Amino acid sequence: MDLPEVTSRSSDHTAAEDENRGEMQLIHRRMRRLSLHLNPALSPDFPDRGLEMVMCAGKAKVLQVRTEVLLQYMKGRHRDIQDKVYEYFKSRPDLQTPIEISKDEHRELCMRQLRGLVHEAGIRPFKYVVDDPVKYFAMAEAAGSVDMSLGIKLGVQYSLWGGSVLNLGTKKHRDKYFEGIDNLEYTGCFAMTELHHGSNVQGLQTVATFDPLKDEFIIDTPNDGAIKWWIGNAAVHGKFATVFARLLLPTHDSKGVSDMGVHAFIVPIRDLNTHKTLPGVEIHDCGHKIGLNGVDNGALRFRSVRIPRDNLLNRFGDVSRDGKYTSSLPTINKRFAATLGELVGGRVGLAHASVGVLKLAVTIATRYSLLRQQFGPPKEPEISILDYQSQQQKLMPMLASAYAFHFATLHLVERYSDMKKSHDEELIGDVHALSAGLKAYVTSYTAKSLNTCREACGGHGYATVNQFGSLRNDHDIFQTFEGDNTVLLQQLAGFLLKQYGEKFRGGTLSVTWNYLRQSMKSYLSQPNPVTSRWEGEDHLRDPNFQLDAFRYRTSRLLQSVAVRLQKHSKTLGGFGAWNRCLNHLLTLAESHIESFILEIFIRAVKRCPDASSRAALKLVCDLYALNRIWNDIGTYRNVDYVAPNKAKAIHKLTEYLCFQVRNTAKELVDAFDLPDFVIRAPIALQDSEQVYSQYAHYAGF
Amino acid sequence: MDLPEVTSRSSDHTAAEDENRGEMQLIHRRMRRLSLHLNPALSPDFPDRGLEMVMCAGKAKVLQVRTEVLLQYMKGRHRDIQDKVYEYFKSRPDLQTPIEISKDEHRELCMRQLRGLVHEAGIRPFKYVVDDPVKYFAMAEAAGSVDMSLGIKLGVQYSLWGGSVLNLGTKKHRDKYFEGIDNLEYTGCFAMTELHHGSNVQGLQTVATFDPLKDEFIIDTPNDGAIKWWIGNAAVHGKFATVFARLLLPTHDSKGVSDMGVHAFIVPIRDLNTHKTLPGVEIHDCGHKIGLNGVDNGALRFRSVRIPRDNLLNRFGDVSRDGKYTSSLPTINKRFAATLGELVGGRVGLAHASVGVLKLAVTIATRYSLLRQQFGPPKEPEISILDYQSQQQKLMPMLASAYAFHFATLHLVERYSDMKKSHDEELIGDVHALSAGLKAYVTSYTAKSLNTCREACGGHGYATVNQFGSLRNDHDIFQTFEGDNTVLLQQLAGFLLKQYGEKFRGGTLSVTWNYLRQSMKSYLSQPNPVTSRWEGEDHLRDPNFQLDAFRYRTSRLLQSVAVRLQKHSKTLGGFGAWNRCLNHLLTLAESHIESFILEIFIRAVKRCPDASSRAALKLVCDLYALNRIWNDIGTYRNVDYVAPNKAKAIHKLTEYLCFQVRNTAKELVDAFDLPDFVIRAPIALQDSEQVYSQYAHYAGF
Repeated sequence: MDLPEVTSRSSDHTAAEDENRGEMQLIHRRMRRLSLHLNPALSPDFPDRGLEMVMCAGKAKVLQVRTEVLLQYMKGRHRDIQDKVYEYFKSRPDLQTPIEISKDEHRELCMRQLRGLVHEAGIRPFKYVVDDPVKYFAMAEAAGSVDMSLGIKLGVQYSLWGGSVLNLGTKKHRDKYFEGIDNLEYTGCFAMTELHHGSNVQGLQTVATFDPLKDEFIIDTPNDGAIKWWIGNAAVHGKFATVFARLLLPTHDSKGVSDMGVHAFIVPIRDLNTHKTLPGVEIHDCGHKIGLNGVDNGALRFRSVRIPRDNLLNRFGDVSRDGKYTSSLPTINKRFAATLGELVGGRVGLAHASVGVLKLAVTIATRYSLLRQQFGPPKEPEISILDYQSQQQKLMPMLASAYAFHFATLHLVERYSDMKKSHDEELIGDVHALSAGLKAYVTSYTAKSLNTCREACGGHGYATVNQFGSLRNDHDIFQTFEGDNTVLLQQLAGFLLKQYGEKFRGGTLSVTWNYLRQSMKSYLSQPNPVTSRWEGEDHLRDPNFQLDAFRYRTSRLLQSVAVRLQKHSKTLGGFGAWNRCLNHLLTLAESHIESFILEIFIRAVKRCPDASSRAALKLVCDLYALNRIWNDIGTYRNVDYVAPNKAKAIHKLTEYLCFQVRNTAKELVDAFDLPDFVIRAPIALQDSEQVYSQYAHYAGF
Repeated sequence: MDLPEVTSRSSDHTAAEDENRGEMQLIHRRMRRLSLHLNPALSPDFPDRGLEMVMCAGKAKVLQVRTEVLLQYMKGRHRDIQDKVYEYFKSRPDLQTPIEISKDEHRELCMRQLRGLVHEAGIRPFKYVVDDPVKYFAMAEAAGSVDMSLGIKLGVQYSLWGGSVLNLGTKKHRDKYFEGIDNLEYTGCFAMTELHHGSNVQGLQTVATFDPLKDEFIIDTPNDGAIKWWIGNAAVHGKFATVFARLLLPTHDSKGVSDMGVHAFIVPIRDLNTHKTLPGVEIHDCGHKIGLNGVDNGALRFRSVRIPRDNLLNRFGDVSRDGKYTSSLPTINKRFAATLGELVGGRVGLAHASVGVLKLAVTIATRYSLLRQQFGPPKEPEISILDYQSQQQKLMPMLASAYAFHFATLHLVERYSDMKKSHDEELIGDVHALSAGLKAYVTSYTAKSLNTCREACGGHGYATVNQFGSLRNDHDIFQTFEGDNTVLLQQLAGFLLKQYGEKFRGGTLSVTWNYLRQSMKSYLSQPNPVTSRWEGEDHLRDPNFQLDAFRYRTSRLLQSVAVRLQKHSKTLGGFGAWNRCLNHLLTLAESHIESFILEIFIRAVKRCPDASSRAALKLVCDLYALNRIWNDIGTYRNVDYVAPNKAKAIHKLTEYLCFQVRNTAKELVDAFDLPDFVIRAPIALQDSEQVYSQYAHYAGF
């Protein structure tokens, strides 16, 4: 292991910084010691006896997993770009985020990290956004694992601010802004959310009134509720903002103006040279956040800020010199949908990054649980805590889910990339619904898992140095930004119902929803009383049984909610009926996403060319599937899709699969291929039983 | 509302402090504005139309809750002491914890808070510990809600360090240490956990060897794994430590020493006057933690540290001048159990404090959800987000649980207090098992709820000023310290199985377990095929049905796990069988605790003298019960305890009860009686729709 020296920062530093550097030095010292592979004989109380199996769980056939081969299959196309990011930060300890850092210092450090990446490491994020989104997401994941604030800061600059210019603007905007955005001269914000309106974007109140005399738009914040809020890059670093506002055009009738709906405008907020806030713009600081304090979120108020007509991002709607509105899209709603549709990349990126966080957390928790020993049979050595059924139950389904989500988000990223090239309308709808659902599902799951990991690692999990705190605090907001999860799942449910309606009107289904045609048929007939009793391992591990069960559930939820919605609409109206069925709709959306994930996972297992890797993937895939079925066993039992004996068999097999996955857990987390530099946590770095004595060294003993 | 001015601190301060003070000033300014009850007419975009009901959910009869009366019933005996704590800190803004603070500053502030409480506010924690534990817990809850670090620092000093001297020592110790502990001259630590041994206390390795020549014990840390770790008060402030170590007595045989098992010793670690670390003691800093950074956790290593023989806390075992061991208890295991048994107060306190955190979080989330509006029927005003079924589903069962846990922990605290007076052996066992189970169950629930609350409050929930971050980060470790939750639930399961065994041997059951006798009978017969189909609201809301369902489940789990354990023991041995059934055992323990909570809650409802309060409590009690049954509907369906039609009716009624509780949610959270000073969060402080404009003022607009 090649370890960087800690060099002193060039800037002035405070006592707190000294302290942080002290902690970093301790970590580095510990890492160096780890790399020496100390002689176990030096620690006589820590006998080197490897991981003993708990005999109580029976002798299982242990899979032989070749990590290198499995890893090769897991790796995406763009592993090189990730290595480039890691190598750069590994070589620059002055750019590594210390354990304790103030909000203001963190913001500055994060900007330095971003500048280093672009100016020194030769990363060209904006180029990747345009040429190869898969590469962009891979790079962003690596940057985020160095410091999640950096990942988000990067996303604000290139995906949100940059992306809005690219996707909502036209050639003139690209020509004018591309270079500046790419090289960080034109730092920018994405000013959509207002204090009063987050999820309900169509309700936002900022206005852009066209002034035909001066050929300008006048941007105004009409009231406190319309202040742009939580705007990343606004508090300190941004020079521009893409501002979402209602476009008002003067008319000659009594109303005086006509509201054309929400449009996006480029508004300069700070002087390019002096960095002073421009006249009419008020910028304030949204303050300290639970996490991501490297990102400078601010609030913006506009008082008659004038911008040239050219600053309207006019891809879906334009205003002519004489104040006439033109658009290729007929209605406000369609324009709004097209505008939001272009912003789907953010969600794709978040789903992808969230899986990265999950992998990291599972890796730390699994490695620690393999090494930490506590209690044991009378007069025998203590056993690894991962040998406890309860610990297996906490971590192994999570490990399986990380694999499942890996393939699902990889698939999404690739489809997104296809969509950007083909602009195929069906694909656009598909990616939109899928990204909404996967982002919501994956980020919720990861957020829950981070808590479980911390708790599963006991007191040591509570030490900041072991990462669970920062991972959780930084990741937490993934559930909210780029679309609140509860709102996104409803979008997916709505899409699903639309597809369902079209099916009955004889239309075709999008590819992702095609399975519904078949399973709806099987759902509409009664569950098979024979197969509902089958309980053999071969049957339960048959992908067809698993997928049928997932899809049956989705079809049933879809069919029944459609009936309920129709019924309630008559008395409660559409909005009321939707709300009355809301929990049902959310469950439907989750169920569909689970079906999708399982389908992709099963396909990935089948396609794996190496037999031992395939067997390992099949094992975690089975655990993913059966654990999900067991978690919702009430539903399956309620309709007798699964008989009592089969329910019991599923439960038993799930526990057994947890045990089997435990036996190959080390190889499975190793195949995530996270470098030590990123794993960082002292409780997870080692590959020997020396962790405790090393941990003592961390504290300076 | 009486608002404190921010006065400058006497100590030197850094730029970060200035910033924090700036933020505090903003908060105070906002609070002052709130107290002005601004004229709504000033904010024309925010029409004052109160909370409109969503008609889609039907017109429910809204309960008229008289908050003052309900609150009176909820209040414990010792509300005055809480007010005393609140008033003190309200009057001392210099002692209030700012939004952003470094670890080292926080530790010093926390110590100043504690000194202020004891030296200025006239709080006498150690006196309460001895005279009136209920009063102590009430005071500690209030201190914890000012800053949870203070609550824990207090607990370390008085409950752990002080409590160990009181409960494990004898009169000589009390005489020597009481005054110094009480007035904070003798600050101390509780040094049990080692790097290598947390949960498995019996496995710890620090040794105390008796030296008969000098009449002293020699304390030694034999290896890195035996370093005392995570010791609160050790890194900076502690003068003494109660050190748990294996007592070694010299023998005349070949072994040379005899291991008498784990005992507790008072070891001075810093000089009383100079505060310098004493010879042979090494103290290190465990560093930054996810939360509770006001508490200075450190690590201790001992190198032949000599202490007088009198420093053995000798209540359960003593060593005479000539090295002879005496004890009233016959075996190492019994002495160990008695020692740990005395430390149960910490768990009682944590369960109690955890409910305080839950109440606070639910209050903030509920108030915000009533005021925040988003979307609505077409061309109608937006609706409160608490009118969405999904938001009700997230928050209302949590509100119901906070009520349920309130009564359950109050009951526990009172029984603990009785136990301390009576020393009744049966009561000791009962309190031990109950406190283990309740601590585990309640802290796990609260930890999950904190995440849900943050997420339910969207972006605003992510602002540090709105408290969810600090509540979560501080509370997180409640699941681990004073006994890992997974380990504690196993203790309860073990206790339960012991009671079960005794029943079959004809013994009597402890009061808390008495119900098992009856329900075991009903369990052993088949579920009643008639009642399993009853689905009327009266039946489902009948406390007898609810309690029977809870107890049936517990009895079934108990009976079946006993059978499984017996079966597996033959092939796997006791340890292996236990591990094979571990998930089952944990579910059993949770199920028992839920039965206990419901029983206490139902009793509290019945005893409430005021009809409207009783109706409100009945409503949340029903929601608590039915939501729990629904969450485990798979189990009930599997044995046909509940028929499909009844399962559906339970689900429907649960959703309806969520809606009903929503309609009286404001009164229900108000009855928790948390002062604005403690609620603090800008998104929850107001009683009008002005929250957004006020929130803008927070940022300085």
